[in-house]
Amino acid sequence: MLAETLAAIRPADQRALAEARAHQDRLTKPRGSLGALEDVAIRLAGAAGACPPPMPSPAALAIFAADHGVHARGVSPWPQEVTVQMVANFLSGGAVANAFAAQAGVPVTVVDVGVAADLPDAPDLVKRKIAYGTADLSRGPAMTVDQAVRALEAGIVVARGLVAEGARCLIAGDMGIANTTASAALVSVFTGKDPAEVTGRGTGIDDGTHERKVAIVREALQVNGLMREEPQPAAVGSSPSEALRALAAVGGFEHAAIAGFILYGAAARVPVILDGVIAGAGALAAAALDPAATDHCVAGHRSAEPGHAAALDHLGLRPLIDLEMRLGEGTGALLAHPMVCAVVRMMHDVATFDAAGVTEKPV
Amino acid sequence: MLAETLAAIRPADQRALAEARAHQDRLTKPRGSLGALEDVAIRLAGAAGACPPPMPSPAALAIFAADHGVHARGVSPWPQEVTVQMVANFLSGGAVANAFAAQAGVPVTVVDVGVAADLPDAPDLVKRKIAYGTADLSRGPAMTVDQAVRALEAGIVVARGLVAEGARCLIAGDMGIANTTASAALVSVFTGKDPAEVTGRGTGIDDGTHERKVAIVREALQVNGLMREEPQPAAVGSSPSEALRALAAVGGFEHAAIAGFILYGAAARVPVILDGVIAGAGALAAAALDPAATDHCVAGHRSAEPGHAAALDHLGLRPLIDLEMRLGEGTGALLAHPMVCAVVRMMHDVATFDAAGVTEKPV
Repeated sequence: MLAETLAAIRPADQRALAEARAHQDRLTKPRGSLGALEDVAIRLAGAAGACPPPMPSPAALAIFAADHGVHARGVSPWPQEVTVQMVANFLSGGAVANAFAAQAGVPVTVVDVGVAADLPDAPDLVKRKIAYGTADLSRGPAMTVDQAVRALEAGIVVARGLVAEGARCLIAGDMGIANTTASAALVSVFTGKDPAEVTGRGTGIDDGTHERKVAIVREALQVNGLMREEPQPAAVGSSPSEALRALAAVGGFEHAAIAGFILYGAAARVPVILDGVIAGAGALAAAALDPAATDHCVAGHRSAEPGHAAALDHLGLRPLIDLEMRLGEGTGALLAHPMVCAVVRMMHDVATFDAAGVTEKPV
Repeated sequence: MLAETLAAIRPADQRALAEARAHQDRLTKPRGSLGALEDVAIRLAGAAGACPPPMPSPAALAIFAADHGVHARGVSPWPQEVTVQMVANFLSGGAVANAFAAQAGVPVTVVDVGVAADLPDAPDLVKRKIAYGTADLSRGPAMTVDQAVRALEAGIVVARGLVAEGARCLIAGDMGIANTTASAALVSVFTGKDPAEVTGRGTGIDDGTHERKVAIVREALQVNGLMREEPQPAAVGSSPSEALRALAAVGGFEHAAIAGFILYGAAARVPVILDGVIAGAGALAAAALDPAATDHCVAGHRSAEPGHAAALDHLGLRPLIDLEMRLGEGTGALLAHPMVCAVVRMMHDVATFDAAGVTEKPV
């Protein structure tokens, strides 16, 4: 299933990109006056292979939840049980992601890809548990390659289901205590940046814990043979099998699932709005499996986590929102969705200078 | 009418501010994890005098259109007729503001406060023309003080009408070829910054025109006695009558109307989402008339115009969106509106740690 998905991915359509650029310049507004949004409209046309691109609506949010063996090393002040508790909170509609999704008219699906507890059935819960949390990435591989592939395929299956039900925009959220540690390791591996540059404070840790967290990320890279030469991490991405091995070694089930979710969106030409550092790390893994996947992504926001900025830079994506959010759950992407819709609607609805009888500025 | 409006304005309610701060910290999310959005939620509670604040929905957009005598000095490459043509474009639904407003479900009203032509009647056009454009601000006062008061009152009347029809959030847009020149002059006067620091390229001008535009703004301040001592502009704002005189001297009818629109919002405790540099300059004038007006404003975005950053800094407002947009019409504020709604909905809907049974991080 992973292979078929990868085989279906096409890069941005050059003709649609050119058409969208030309169309933008005919619309009744000064050229360039929508700043970075113009590029979003053009990129979406390229991704869809059509100008104007289809409306990215309705959207659907999938929150991928999983636990992390590295939690045992004290990288987070929150107990691991909070992952399960927050899954229950999502399912009863009480989390921030629910409020933002309700405001945007986006349905929420929660996917258990590796929570460290059995979860009761619920209508909006999809059960695709790979294991009761990953192994501790600082002692060896967090997942086997087979587990990583199954998590990727869980993301593909979920995205396929949402698109089949009518979603025309995919949003990936995450929940997993300690998942910023795995994110930092993934970002370090896929961008080649030192763990100290890309490891942040997650939900809020003190200086001592942060120092330990950086050291643990470094250990994870060393133990898993992902340091090219001390102290430089290997910038992975030259081959899909190498990428898969790195994802398995230091990723989480939710990172792998989000990578699969993105790959399916790319294959189906349905745009994916990325959330924070967890989605960013997943997008790096997806891009390492097929760089063209990034053409189908929009960066919803930039989080306060330093690894997120590094991930977006590496992917060449400019975030729409930049407000030091660091909540995850898809919240940043949900806030960006109306903006993405507005930009596409502009491509459909706005009059051209000719049609509106508005004089163009002499060039 | 201006006096009654000013008399009704109250600053942020300290009790509601404190309640909102405490409520935020009980919600099921790490403290501070929504970054700058948490402050927006708190400020809206303070502005409304209630926690949670009422939903800022439905919203209404008023686009204030006017012409500028200074256009004759070649500060814009666009012919003045484009103001009229764009009014027609708004009224037929063809502009970017229409597309963004339609996406956000916000109705659009166009207000002629000083377009240099007679406009045919239209259902969404409010006619409050003060004059056929302002006088040239670089030769003397752009408006008489009486005209400025009438323009302020036009903004008050429009805001009052929209609130009476049910609007619970006000958005001010603008249209007026050459209005970034008047904006730069207003920003210079109200912030005390030099014209060179706050005069931008508007819809797009070359280096030579930009240099001339800066010189014209400087002339305007000199001619109107708004330079404290060469070359420093007087930072106006110590008294309402001084503010009014400055607004009349170098402002536009749309700036004055937007200031009135903001003042009415503040008086009615209905939040106002600010757009770009024209709204920012109007907000500076409103704040000079009553500093508490700013408590009721949210900065929708920061435009590419340097004067806008200066205005927001002076007002102490952090923009929600920062994408180098420079279109005006209310477009930046329209994009921010769903975000403001999401933040308020969070204050209503999100479960507390206690209610959701989620373990709080040990502090």
